[in-house]
Amino acid sequence: MKTDTGRDLQRDHAGRLRHLLTLEGLARDEIVQLLDLAQFYVREPGDLPARDGALLGRTVANLFFEPSTRTRVSFELAATRLGADVVNLDLHSSSRVKGETVLDTIYTLQAMMVDVFVMRDSEPGLPAFVAGHVQPHVSVLNAGEAHVSHPTQGLLDVLTIRQRKGDLQNLCVAIVGDISHSRVARSTATALQTLGVGELRFVSPASLAPEADEFPGAKRCASLEDGIRGADVIMALRIQKERMDQSQIPDVDAFLKEWGITERSILHANKGAIVLHPGPMNRGVEITSAIADGPASAVQQQVRNGVAVRMAVLATIVRNVQVRNVQAGRREV
Amino acid sequence: MKTDTGRDLQRDHAGRLRHLLTLEGLARDEIVQLLDLAQFYVREPGDLPARDGALLGRTVANLFFEPSTRTRVSFELAATRLGADVVNLDLHSSSRVKGETVLDTIYTLQAMMVDVFVMRDSEPGLPAFVAGHVQPHVSVLNAGEAHVSHPTQGLLDVLTIRQRKGDLQNLCVAIVGDISHSRVARSTATALQTLGVGELRFVSPASLAPEADEFPGAKRCASLEDGIRGADVIMALRIQKERMDQSQIPDVDAFLKEWGITERSILHANKGAIVLHPGPMNRGVEITSAIADGPASAVQQQVRNGVAVRMAVLATIVRNVQVRNVQAGRREV
Amino acid sequence: MKTDTGRDLQRDHAGRLRHLLTLEGLARDEIVQLLDLAQFYVREPGDLPARDGALLGRTVANLFFEPSTRTRVSFELAATRLGADVVNLDLHSSSRVKGETVLDTIYTLQAMMVDVFVMRDSEPGLPAFVAGHVQPHVSVLNAGEAHVSHPTQGLLDVLTIRQRKGDLQNLCVAIVGDISHSRVARSTATALQTLGVGELRFVSPASLAPEADEFPGAKRCASLEDGIRGADVIMALRIQKERMDQSQIPDVDAFLKEWGITERSILHANKGAIVLHPGPMNRGVEITSAIADGPASAVQQQVRNGVAVRMAVLATIVRNVQVRNVQAGRREV
Repeated sequence: MKTDTGRDLQRDHAGRLRHLLTLEGLARDEIVQLLDLAQFYVREPGDLPARDGALLGRTVANLFFEPSTRTRVSFELAATRLGADVVNLDLHSSSRVKGETVLDTIYTLQAMMVDVFVMRDSEPGLPAFVAGHVQPHVSVLNAGEAHVSHPTQGLLDVLTIRQRKGDLQNLCVAIVGDISHSRVARSTATALQTLGVGELRFVSPASLAPEADEFPGAKRCASLEDGIRGADVIMALRIQKERMDQSQIPDVDAFLKEWGITERSILHANKGAIVLHPGPMNRGVEITSAIADGPASAVQQQVRNGVAVRMAVLATIVRNVQVRNVQAGRREV
Repeated sequence: MKTDTGRDLQRDHAGRLRHLLTLEGLARDEIVQLLDLAQFYVREPGDLPARDGALLGRTVANLFFEPSTRTRVSFELAATRLGADVVNLDLHSSSRVKGETVLDTIYTLQAMMVDVFVMRDSEPGLPAFVAGHVQPHVSVLNAGEAHVSHPTQGLLDVLTIRQRKGDLQNLCVAIVGDISHSRVARSTATALQTLGVGELRFVSPASLAPEADEFPGAKRCASLEDGIRGADVIMALRIQKERMDQSQIPDVDAFLKEWGITERSILHANKGAIVLHPGPMNRGVEITSAIADGPASAVQQQVRNGVAVRMAVLATIVRNVQVRNVQAGRREV
Repeated sequence: MKTDTGRDLQRDHAGRLRHLLTLEGLARDEIVQLLDLAQFYVREPGDLPARDGALLGRTVANLFFEPSTRTRVSFELAATRLGADVVNLDLHSSSRVKGETVLDTIYTLQAMMVDVFVMRDSEPGLPAFVAGHVQPHVSVLNAGEAHVSHPTQGLLDVLTIRQRKGDLQNLCVAIVGDISHSRVARSTATALQTLGVGELRFVSPASLAPEADEFPGAKRCASLEDGIRGADVIMALRIQKERMDQSQIPDVDAFLKEWGITERSILHANKGAIVLHPGPMNRGVEITSAIADGPASAVQQQVRNGVAVRMAVLATIVRNVQVRNVQAGRREV
């Protein structure tokens, strides 16, 4: 179920990031630079948000084939606070069958001088496909692609861990729950391994584990207690009810008991361990409210970092592209 | 059916308005100051609208659990003309059951550094509930709450009356129609009483009257002729067909005949009387087109004042909060 | 099926354009001026889009009673890049029956100080009707009206032809396909005739031809080969499946074979002929991908010109109105 499509496609001829399709293939330094720039954009609650003219005059289009209000608003605010004009297109199921191909929609918006496409889709492959067809000055940001990739979420997770726990080399991170269907788990795991995390664990029922050949070096744990023991960071994932059947877990209560992050299960973790969740949370299913709202929770910090990370990615990509345009003095019709 | 939840909650420790949940508990001077600031923002047709940087750098989120294009656009333009960034979220029925609680949605947007939540809901209680949970620098504006409260509508109504008829002490105001289900009637009546209106009348069938203990001092009239006689201001309310059954009024024609504001019924009012309606109007039901479009009508003036009042409320609340932040030098994660 | 409603209505007392409802009645010079200004706003891919403060402080409302994401975004970006505030209202079928008349919606938005209404509707008549009721400083732009008119599309088509093929006097333009139901064909034909096109041809099955009295001087061709022979510009139109039945064309394949713009059928045209399509294209129905994506295609150039034309129309109309306001020193409530 893993794909590395996009790994090379996302760079220009000089090796600079031009799209963000996946975290696979990014060097440690590239990720660190993105995190550092994101950190620069982070503000405390009560402060005004960071602003920057990096995208002044640019146009960002949010193309969500799978609806997601929270991620759309996060990208919208990131782009707006960088000075971009933003257009939102809700393109759910209906539009795709209306007779215009996705590529024609892209070409149309590109001709209207959209510079950046932020795309989310429940099927794999669309961001890389579009990236392979747009003009050289146009960028594609993957905002969630099936079970495959959600690179900005991966970045915001490692940023949050870095803020709370410091250097990743000394940390044990446990990703818990429905990993097999999770784009978040894949992108965060990639970021963690690239940054040299001390130990990475996948903690799940066998039926919800990642593929056997994914993430060499990560440890797999078939019980929550084993998985959490000694962890410094626990990342819970959203479980969907229809997945429970597949995993032979009879119901929500059974899932919480066996795999839920609770005040009881977290006792196995290291002292000061923190809990992440990509949201939206199923309270009482994969996480209890006591944990979600308690001192170990980094959930809101993740969301805040999400805007900062998206600002950093937008600013970086647009700067890379802009430089190339100016250097080349290119003009195309 | 009356609630005063929110009355105290909407002030900070120093007694300044931090949310606007209800007009109950606002002092006469506070309302006058809001009206004066709104008046400052009013422009004539053909002029450019008033602009002000009071919300520069701020982010306003419109959260409408009950759809209302006109009110959403009014708040959106008010915030935009004050320099804010605005995000719109349509959160109707579907989103509420999607597994994320309303509070998690709020926390998520708050973490994205939304400063002001503009909320509308068909159930009572949400704005006060949210106001009780947001961070100290975050404000909630009630944009319509069940039958309970619609404070900016109350303010725009009294502003309109003040512009057209002057001092409220000398005026007789008749609110006509389905009062029991009307948040507009409640907020406007509160504002009128706080400002010391000369006489306030509720004119409706018994089944659509406010509760017996609401608005002491107001007069209740069980016939339109009695209610309108001697009135300087007549405020018609939208009646919904399903309410007519409850009120033993057989149909639209009967309602118009018995309770409608028409060229005939308005003859009982004082000379120069004006007619208000919160919109959207059911022409030919609670009001005729001759009245709605005639010289007595203040309907469009109300709409124009609506943007100005929302600008005044936003600017006031953000200024109050901002001052406190600066004084406290507070920093929280 | 032709209507000239709006022809006179769209000018102010001094004869200046105040609305854009139709291209009928526009003088050659007026169209040329709009095209010249649009050309001024055109930028090449990779450049930043043109910006201009012509609409600073103004508010544009997109009122789409018929959904169209691409046209809505084109107007939204045009207005935004001129400095306007933009509000989008999706008013499809549901809103129209909600009890508020269209005119009340317009009056409400006008009272909120909306300066320009961009309107699309599947029924004829609404733009002119609204233009006849708004205040003197308010403008209506027709963004697509039933089969009747789509003036900005007509302008962008002739701008595209001018850019690619030069002076229209020397050109033969063939409009091909479902002309009878096409607002695009009507507006483009009007623009072409006003600008003195060398030859204008309507190429279609008899059942899809324009009315007999429409566009005197244009030639009608009942076969594609006859219609394309010697043409410099071929404009394909979107055909809807339900129209095929009416035209006794059994299916998509038959339509493509008999009326489609293909690598084979285009061989009859003059050397260097270009192909236009208003989009969205039915690839493999009225046009093949080989043509749509080939060197003859001007499809994306049309889209790019679309934003520039809409900027030109907005800037022109607002300037005309603004001047009048200032001269008259008018104040109305």
